[in-house]
Amino acid sequence: MSELRYDPLQKRWVIIATERGTRPSDLDPSTKYDHMKVCSFCEGNEARTPPEIWAIRDPGTLPDSPGWKVRVIPNKYPALIVEAEEKRLGVGYYDMIGGKGAHEVIIETPQHNVGLADLPPEQVKLVLLAYRERLRELYKNPRLKYVLIFKNHGIRAGASLAHPHSQLIATPIVPRNVNMKLTASKQHYDEKERCLICDLIRQDMDAKTRVIHSENGFVAIAPYASRFPFEVFIAPIAHNYSFAEVVDEELERFSHFLKNILLRLKNVLKDPPFNYVLNTSPNIEAEPKFSDQWVTIKHDYHWHIEVIPRLVRIAGFEWGSGFYINPSTPEMATRYLREAKVE
Amino acid sequence: MSELRYDPLQKRWVIIATERGTRPSDLDPSTKYDHMKVCSFCEGNEARTPPEIWAIRDPGTLPDSPGWKVRVIPNKYPALIVEAEEKRLGVGYYDMIGGKGAHEVIIETPQHNVGLADLPPEQVKLVLLAYRERLRELYKNPRLKYVLIFKNHGIRAGASLAHPHSQLIATPIVPRNVNMKLTASKQHYDEKERCLICDLIRQDMDAKTRVIHSENGFVAIAPYASRFPFEVFIAPIAHNYSFAEVVDEELERFSHFLKNILLRLKNVLKDPPFNYVLNTSPNIEAEPKFSDQWVTIKHDYHWHIEVIPRLVRIAGFEWGSGFYINPSTPEMATRYLREAKVE
Repeated sequence: MSELRYDPLQKRWVIIATERGTRPSDLDPSTKYDHMKVCSFCEGNEARTPPEIWAIRDPGTLPDSPGWKVRVIPNKYPALIVEAEEKRLGVGYYDMIGGKGAHEVIIETPQHNVGLADLPPEQVKLVLLAYRERLRELYKNPRLKYVLIFKNHGIRAGASLAHPHSQLIATPIVPRNVNMKLTASKQHYDEKERCLICDLIRQDMDAKTRVIHSENGFVAIAPYASRFPFEVFIAPIAHNYSFAEVVDEELERFSHFLKNILLRLKNVLKDPPFNYVLNTSPNIEAEPKFSDQWVTIKHDYHWHIEVIPRLVRIAGFEWGSGFYINPSTPEMATRYLREAKVE
Repeated sequence: MSELRYDPLQKRWVIIATERGTRPSDLDPSTKYDHMKVCSFCEGNEARTPPEIWAIRDPGTLPDSPGWKVRVIPNKYPALIVEAEEKRLGVGYYDMIGGKGAHEVIIETPQHNVGLADLPPEQVKLVLLAYRERLRELYKNPRLKYVLIFKNHGIRAGASLAHPHSQLIATPIVPRNVNMKLTASKQHYDEKERCLICDLIRQDMDAKTRVIHSENGFVAIAPYASRFPFEVFIAPIAHNYSFAEVVDEELERFSHFLKNILLRLKNVLKDPPFNYVLNTSPNIEAEPKFSDQWVTIKHDYHWHIEVIPRLVRIAGFEWGSGFYINPSTPEMATRYLREAKVE
């Protein structure tokens, strides 16, 4: 079983996979992944994966058989598992939580070689639907405080399998960076009774210099303090604290928008490796309720997606300081992405 | 000139190189560095670098000529420069500071192919002396709040030149992760009147399970909540808030200790790419003085070095959450490193 361990100096939780115990010989950084072997995520190979948790299927097809459009399965090497014992321990100055949570894979298409940018919008919509449904389902568990949904595209971005997929990790804590955003948003709201992200979006849309694209209620912005070249921030313009609250019609509109932005990145940067992360509300129904931490969250937080193309190497400076050198300006990235082809 | 830009949502400063403006064509992630061309850091090629700032030289040799043992030069492509205008601006909800600071390279040896682990301790001591002297000198400038000293070893760890070198970046702000450690340390001190890092070191040394090596007043520990496989925390056992305060005799002892630990990593992990970062006190003489933020810092902070072997790929999950999955346990890393050869 895994453990979550807390560092009181860095105020950070880490998942330690205590049982797999990777040894030095497993850690060769030059390891090449073999994409040519039989793909477990392809249609027809359902028996090679753990039993599916959720799927969109053609009428009459059975679980773990062909006939699906999007398929959600447990990660074969999970960082956290639902069945883990609920255990919180102090270890001197440190803290430990048993590895309770979930680690799932969202297989985005039965096709092996078509990335999200090239899938038809109807298929992108089904992927987004899977995100929303898994969020809703996992947030029914009061022991899970956060669900992190993310995508690694390309080996350099950490993908170990080529078949297009996203992942989710549900945790019994709120991760540090999410907590910092929640705190900043709440401070702003407490002072002004306005959502910080709404304010930032409005300011950026007024200034125009870093707006990549806006359409159908969504906006893509190159952030003022972009950490990475061609970083993109995507959000609904209208206030909404949680991706779990997105309605079907909005999902439809968002599928077109997300595809549009991913196509721009693909065309300008020649199909770059990238990560994206969905930032959404924590599970406000989680128990035990924390004082008044999330009392105003429906008003103060705003879901968004951060897209990070992996174009530059991260060096020691960034790890040690949490602060980044971006060799490129977001204003320049905006100009390129604004004029990009979207077909 | 560069700018420091602040993101109010992430509470994070980023350096944006506004003039170099890397274009998409410069950002090919598969770029190979050419280590075979003439090395500007080798002895005899001093004219290829900007004029040296500091050096340890044989008697009678001139600056920017052969005869040096350690040589400090400005970075040819500096992220920040001392001459930049002192300018702080609000940009709506954002903040900007002109790119004032320093970006220097510490060339660790005239030899091209001998890493820090393999240099004689006397030479390692000169490198550490350079760190201390540059810290002391830069902290005389009241506009510089922090000096980050770090090393990238190997291309995968972000090194763009093979010749052994470290870097330092002096900034007009305190980087986020440093600030978080300072805050945690101060909270602990305010409550207990003890140094948090002293307490953590004592606890780890009592428990023994994660102590890699301890000798001559220093200790190397695999942190309880290690973010990465084989991460190592190195610190003096006796309390000392700042590397600038280390005396010559301690530098001598530390040169042996640091070499010992780097040799263990090299032998167990086959000369892995790695980063290390020196964590030390900010410039407490910086102006304007911030309220009582650093009043107890001589008692509450404790300098240390974090060594991070770059063995696993960082995926989207980590960027989005600031929380990490370590596929390996620090207890296991300790066993390997404890038994490593040190020759």
